[in-house]
Amino acid sequence: MQEKGLLIVLSGPSGVGKGTVRKEIFSQPDTAFEYSISMTTRTPRAGEVDGVDYFFKTREEFEGLIEQGKLLEYAEFVGNYYGTPVDYVRETLDRGKDIFLEIEVQGARQVREKFPEGLFIFLSPPSLSELKNRIVTRGTETEDVINNRMKTAREELEMMHLYDYVVENDQIELACERIKAIVVAEHCRRERVEARYKKMLEVD
Amino acid sequence: MQEKGLLIVLSGPSGVGKGTVRKEIFSQPDTAFEYSISMTTRTPRAGEVDGVDYFFKTREEFEGLIEQGKLLEYAEFVGNYYGTPVDYVRETLDRGKDIFLEIEVQGARQVREKFPEGLFIFLSPPSLSELKNRIVTRGTETEDVINNRMKTAREELEMMHLYDYVVENDQIELACERIKAIVVAEHCRRERVEARYKKMLEVD
Repeated sequence: MQEKGLLIVLSGPSGVGKGTVRKEIFSQPDTAFEYSISMTTRTPRAGEVDGVDYFFKTREEFEGLIEQGKLLEYAEFVGNYYGTPVDYVRETLDRGKDIFLEIEVQGARQVREKFPEGLFIFLSPPSLSELKNRIVTRGTETEDVINNRMKTAREELEMMHLYDYVVENDQIELACERIKAIVVAEHCRRERVEARYKKMLEVD
Repeated sequence: MQEKGLLIVLSGPSGVGKGTVRKEIFSQPDTAFEYSISMTTRTPRAGEVDGVDYFFKTREEFEGLIEQGKLLEYAEFVGNYYGTPVDYVRETLDRGKDIFLEIEVQGARQVREKFPEGLFIFLSPPSLSELKNRIVTRGTETEDVINNRMKTAREELEMMHLYDYVVENDQIELACERIKAIVVAEHCRRERVEARYKKMLEVD
């Protein structure tokens, strides 16, 4: 009878502000989904708390978990491992709660393979609007600047192909609102509601 | 270069409160879409204003517009015609603005045929939650009451099949929030953003 929660994945190019947006979302009291804390082998920075910011593990521990299939996704980044423990994700979904992951693009690709029914949101830099402005003010920009922007836009376009939604990070508050709106909307998708009805009607 | 607006269609079983929800949405100052005023041959009620509540027409005028293909959808209901003038809808979409229609289910079916890319939202009575409650408190309900509820749920299930989203009208404010969230989310759908990027990149 228990309906499963939604797996929400926020990703995007590095430097786009995924962490800032995630922190803002979870500082809002009306956020109804849970955050999946990542695991890492890097040393904690000043003020970081084990089990709050990250689960801090040794390299040996981390590699043991990889071998046991305990990670939903992982990647090595500047000599350190980063990953998502799979058990907490599954337990949360089974409890019918939505869970939120904020991960790198290569991790998102791994999750998409295992959870194609997840909700994949690409956080994009405001390059499209910027590009528009640069084209409009064409006279004042060099050809090089415009070509560079075009190249970046093409790269982003390729990356976003795996995602269901694209949220422009033009303003943090707006980006958070859009992400929360997407989660609300997904719960109203006809296929989901229909599945609920059908389950209900079979009961008798 | 102008991106087209979204055609948003709110429909649902009669008596579910479509009109009330629509009025609430358009009383909110942050609503960013436009309302498509319906046309009717029924006589205005006290306080109703032509061009605000409805466009009031004679039967002859209405039938003339049907013949000229000037209606996106129409239906006869208790001896009167009701319909949506197509020109205003097209002009609004071409201006890049979203437009909102609140119409009966048979009208929604006609619109779906002409605008399959529209956003179709089914407003449902809170029958699913009610059904859940009635099953939970089974001992206290007669078999007849539960069977009636089951029948209604099955009929609604059939009706909602043409729609993209289902919004339960359990509380007007919540229903309005969900509808607005759906519109925000749809603007973030990857296919739409991708189309915008592609248009942009072709420019050069």
